[in-house]
Amino acid sequence: MALIPTVGILGGGQLGRMMAFEARRMGFNVAFLVPAPAPPVENLGEVIVDDWYDPQVLHAFAARCDVVTTENEWAPLDVLAQHNPGIPVWPSPTTLGYIRHKGRQKEHLQKAGLPVPDFRNCRTREEAQQALIELGVPAVAKKFEGSYDGYGNFTIRTPEELSQAWDLLAAEDGLLIEAFVPFVRELAILVARRPSGDMRIYPLVWTEQRDHRCYAVMAPAPVDTSLIEQAQALAKKTAQVVDAVGILAIELFEQPDGTLLINELAPRPHNTGHYSIEACYTSQFENHIRAVLDLPLGSPALRTPAAVMINLLGNRTGETAPRGLAEALSIDQVYLHLYGKTDVRPKRKMGHITALDTTLEEARARAEQAASAITL
Amino acid sequence: MALIPTVGILGGGQLGRMMAFEARRMGFNVAFLVPAPAPPVENLGEVIVDDWYDPQVLHAFAARCDVVTTENEWAPLDVLAQHNPGIPVWPSPTTLGYIRHKGRQKEHLQKAGLPVPDFRNCRTREEAQQALIELGVPAVAKKFEGSYDGYGNFTIRTPEELSQAWDLLAAEDGLLIEAFVPFVRELAILVARRPSGDMRIYPLVWTEQRDHRCYAVMAPAPVDTSLIEQAQALAKKTAQVVDAVGILAIELFEQPDGTLLINELAPRPHNTGHYSIEACYTSQFENHIRAVLDLPLGSPALRTPAAVMINLLGNRTGETAPRGLAEALSIDQVYLHLYGKTDVRPKRKMGHITALDTTLEEARARAEQAASAITL
Repeated sequence: MALIPTVGILGGGQLGRMMAFEARRMGFNVAFLVPAPAPPVENLGEVIVDDWYDPQVLHAFAARCDVVTTENEWAPLDVLAQHNPGIPVWPSPTTLGYIRHKGRQKEHLQKAGLPVPDFRNCRTREEAQQALIELGVPAVAKKFEGSYDGYGNFTIRTPEELSQAWDLLAAEDGLLIEAFVPFVRELAILVARRPSGDMRIYPLVWTEQRDHRCYAVMAPAPVDTSLIEQAQALAKKTAQVVDAVGILAIELFEQPDGTLLINELAPRPHNTGHYSIEACYTSQFENHIRAVLDLPLGSPALRTPAAVMINLLGNRTGETAPRGLAEALSIDQVYLHLYGKTDVRPKRKMGHITALDTTLEEARARAEQAASAITL
Repeated sequence: MALIPTVGILGGGQLGRMMAFEARRMGFNVAFLVPAPAPPVENLGEVIVDDWYDPQVLHAFAARCDVVTTENEWAPLDVLAQHNPGIPVWPSPTTLGYIRHKGRQKEHLQKAGLPVPDFRNCRTREEAQQALIELGVPAVAKKFEGSYDGYGNFTIRTPEELSQAWDLLAAEDGLLIEAFVPFVRELAILVARRPSGDMRIYPLVWTEQRDHRCYAVMAPAPVDTSLIEQAQALAKKTAQVVDAVGILAIELFEQPDGTLLINELAPRPHNTGHYSIEACYTSQFENHIRAVLDLPLGSPALRTPAAVMINLLGNRTGETAPRGLAEALSIDQVYLHLYGKTDVRPKRKMGHITALDTTLEEARARAEQAASAITL
């Protein structure tokens, strides 16, 4: 490894941007490979805009880097790994293989004894009809691959809606149908893990979704110790069974009986971990960079009694035009993050606000007040 | 002002780098004007390398910016202000006029009734000899302009050394001779101030100098409330009398009788404020950016019981080659900052470590352990 390592990042969205801030602060170099101009990472490192499926492009990119990671599990990290066996690539193609395809992800977790919602991988419409009979309605249809931010999910409320879900979401190998989980809360937990298997587990947080999108994250989750211990044990085992390196994000359902089910995994820093930038000793982005460089991991412990993160979403189409920043910044203990996206679209993640305080209620009030002042 | 403002920064050292991290996180653009390539700010914004004393260069730079500030009070901010009356420039040339020349700085503070060490502005060797008789030895000779990081100071221990000090440091208009202050501790305090005069005052910190260079900063200073109140009142008045906008750093001497004297001022973020990045709700860099953009200031309150910052200095000449990072990062609650300087020189500021803990002693132990692991 070079004395001053260069971390290669596939993708140029906000996750790459926030990785870069932490890597650069520690004195490391970053380079980005993106398939199209990426304003969030402009001027944060070398940015190569090229056809990132082309092995030659990937090879040339890897040659500048000491390690390559990604901010997006759909980036061709597996293609790069195949063509550059000398460069460490994290998450590994094996981990991506366990996670990318939601049907295989569920099967892999279930085989390992991890709790997941009842599900069926349906290859045909007939199998899907049979699944719906077995699982009942409501049920959730999920696209096997390529979904993000709620695109790719469909809640089937009547048997007649199955056909619509199939038409929208089925791939050549079919569709995932999951039992609807009547959850008490949605929760999430992050693991940072090194190639050696050393790992550190972040606090359990409470996530609030609106329209299948993360609206707010409350840290720590206001739940009792036994649930936290259950989540930590789950997180540890999950990171091992998918052989995660870097950050692994685990979204969970809390059921009425006090048990947890794994909803989804992401093999990278995650929206539910943005609170960690200010709320934990070591942010998810710093620990991701440390992990992929095989450096000791930092403490994920909270260093504030309470933190609340609220996403700043677009609500129109056009050029980004932030307004209300002065009003938002007039509230103390509030952190403004804007991602540098030049264009706004409805529901696009444009930034976030994190607020710190002594209770979740107070932090939430600060975060809501700041977030509601801003239009983009 | 543009919807997404661009903050122009004259200078490309670590202070500009850390301003850029905070500005970019909030979604603002930054542009740098530097007289020579500046690795610390490379790939953190647009960087213009040109003759920064040339009014045309300054004019072209200002034309890209919504406001211009500096990380270095010796940068030609006054020249820019003269040629670009339409662009806000902070600190103002008036503030620079009060601060840059140490003799005039002392006179200005004294006239305003602020406590400074006994001093003489000596135009000739004869005046300096007379000053030394009046002030006694030891005394401190200080170059009027252009000094930084201990360069430009000379402690006169015997009357015979005056001639050497004069030869080394006297300018056309002479030399500053100050009474040596038998201080108990050196302290420092930061003020963030907006163009309107709104200001917020950071905690009083204890600074430890070695070889006239900042070695460590302990926050908060372990002193009693009356001293803190004295420092805050001094800080407030000082910021007003120099009409500071942005961060003003005030270095102080604590005397055995419990009173304070102002040692020096800097009209910009300062080494004694680096602890604020992790230890305060709003860092000095964020509040500098907010202040120069005339946005509401954030809370400067500590959000940790104790923080210790230790500078990472070079101890050889050559290409930067960081070693020991893994050992340093194995200590929890430690933050690594490397400034991206490609060349190391003895005593050059290459980075810093900040450690957080429940007491200064514990934070100091973490910071020392991490800092001593690293060689550059």
